[in-house]
Amino acid sequence: MKLSTLGEFGLIERLSGVLGSQTDEPLLHGIGDDAAAWRQSPDRLMTATSDSLVEGVHFDLRTTSWRDLGWKALAENLSDIAAMGCEPRYALIGLGLPRETAVADVEALYAGIRECAEAFGCAVVGGDTTEAPLLVLHVTVLGESIPVVGEGEPLLTRAAARPGDVLAVTGPLGASAAGLKLLQSGDASEAPGELLRAHRRPQPRVHAGAILVRAGVRCGIDISDGLLADVGHICERSGVDAEVDLARVPVHPLARTRFGKAAVEMALVGGEDYELVCAGSESALSDASVQLRARGESALTILGSIVKCSGDRPEVRVLQPDGRLWTRTEATGYQHFAKHGLGQAWPGAKGELA
Amino acid sequence: MKLSTLGEFGLIERLSGVLGSQTDEPLLHGIGDDAAAWRQSPDRLMTATSDSLVEGVHFDLRTTSWRDLGWKALAENLSDIAAMGCEPRYALIGLGLPRETAVADVEALYAGIRECAEAFGCAVVGGDTTEAPLLVLHVTVLGESIPVVGEGEPLLTRAAARPGDVLAVTGPLGASAAGLKLLQSGDASEAPGELLRAHRRPQPRVHAGAILVRAGVRCGIDISDGLLADVGHICERSGVDAEVDLARVPVHPLARTRFGKAAVEMALVGGEDYELVCAGSESALSDASVQLRARGESALTILGSIVKCSGDRPEVRVLQPDGRLWTRTEATGYQHFAKHGLGQAWPGAKGELA
Repeated sequence: MKLSTLGEFGLIERLSGVLGSQTDEPLLHGIGDDAAAWRQSPDRLMTATSDSLVEGVHFDLRTTSWRDLGWKALAENLSDIAAMGCEPRYALIGLGLPRETAVADVEALYAGIRECAEAFGCAVVGGDTTEAPLLVLHVTVLGESIPVVGEGEPLLTRAAARPGDVLAVTGPLGASAAGLKLLQSGDASEAPGELLRAHRRPQPRVHAGAILVRAGVRCGIDISDGLLADVGHICERSGVDAEVDLARVPVHPLARTRFGKAAVEMALVGGEDYELVCAGSESALSDASVQLRARGESALTILGSIVKCSGDRPEVRVLQPDGRLWTRTEATGYQHFAKHGLGQAWPGAKGELA
Repeated sequence: MKLSTLGEFGLIERLSGVLGSQTDEPLLHGIGDDAAAWRQSPDRLMTATSDSLVEGVHFDLRTTSWRDLGWKALAENLSDIAAMGCEPRYALIGLGLPRETAVADVEALYAGIRECAEAFGCAVVGGDTTEAPLLVLHVTVLGESIPVVGEGEPLLTRAAARPGDVLAVTGPLGASAAGLKLLQSGDASEAPGELLRAHRRPQPRVHAGAILVRAGVRCGIDISDGLLADVGHICERSGVDAEVDLARVPVHPLARTRFGKAAVEMALVGGEDYELVCAGSESALSDASVQLRARGESALTILGSIVKCSGDRPEVRVLQPDGRLWTRTEATGYQHFAKHGLGQAWPGAKGELA
């Protein structure tokens, strides 16, 4: 069987099978969440995440500068650490580069990485450079949890949603997809800078994750594949359904102004927003909102709720104001190796084993 | 300027400049050694290393099976952890795969990774899979030091060699290069299995590193680029010269039988031996040898000594029994992006930023 038949998520399941069970103390979470996590010392957990970006698959140097690419490559890994409720500490950068690459371009890439690392308090401590026929980036980030106090793990995981939980998101959605659309249109000169920046220089919510955990929230994920796909990952790993109230989805106002109704779809399935979606009790979410505002960050927006799984398998339902279900004809989210495959710049998807 | 003009080591220097100084507590070693290292808790240091392998640059699926490739990709990162005097704990695997890849091949790759992880006590905790036009592997390994007792760091680094130190190696050299030569010859059916295994399934010295540190040795590196190139890295980082006594270099006996005098060159510049070279006091090296033998591992072989830098820049001199200097017409070691570049399968070199 070829990968194109099996698809990305099928492959991940198979490979997890080959590896077998490897979860024992001090390892807490292996394959299947935004990052792996283990107990580093009695009062501290560590997390690690890793992502590859391949030219022509994940980015297009016609719409992304080397400097922005550096920023974004690190930012999306920082977001995975935030999605575990942890704060980033160290990053390792692997670069595959064609021989004819201009040195100035690689320096620009590294300048972008450095800017992002400094903005979010992470040190680039190593990596490697190697020759490759096309540009390949591989970023690994290590993060640390808030201190462990008493029982339980101070982490956000995909598997911790329970029926009765409220579903919330840390900020507006759809700006990155709108920015990409404008860049792909070929003339972005008149486009709102904020939308372009959302696509080129996403801001991972590195503090929000730890704030959620401190407030008692234990379920979360970052929005890389798209709101519905990522809430879907929570549902699958938690064995629950989610109901999203379409009217509550915080569509980015500039995206709405520019794209009207199409902005709603950008917010639901566009991806690369790098906000966090979380599920927890109303009181925990409200505590977190207070703390977020105190830090000058946007408060949580409630999207809907987690309910018992009603069918054969977990699903996400989007309810329109008139009570009808919102549906999209195309499949939501991006799967690598699938037939639709290549050619989508920054598809906003990663086949994460962790 | 193109990378092909600047070369790999020039690029690494430039990129280190772009990042600037990032070494402050708890970070102990950033870019420039086999792995980064930081203080994880008062009594424990952690290390992290990361390497990319690109099809056609680092491996050739005509001479390497998917399963062996999996083993080797992990083994060479475990070796970097051993070269820091640490023991491996966790690995993350990034895979870029063409859509038409057979699922069975990817499973075989993972089976090899698992075998190596189990053999050396490392858990594969995550990673990602993504589409790519050619096979790209990226492995990150995290390791842990022996407990910190008193002052100083219980690590092996490249920068700790001092004039008067003795230079030693943990095992025989040249077997991997001999194995590769036999595989490339097209008919390896009559070749000694041990040489082929040395190339396909290298055995990182994961215990030897910690034993060296316990014995008081503080300078070490693993042999990936080749003995002379790697001793050269020690000299450069320590600001010293090294004198290697050619008669003492432990050329693998099967390589010598098969290739005669050419085996000496394989031992000096072949690379991918994944033994450790270290420098320290005679008594520390002798203590380490006793402990290695007690574990059933091969004792250290003394190669020569570290002396004061005699010229403009640090260098490695190989002394023949008649007192003349051994020289090789070609440059030793492998640099990515250099003109000789592509086409060399498993060149045994990595442009390590850490």
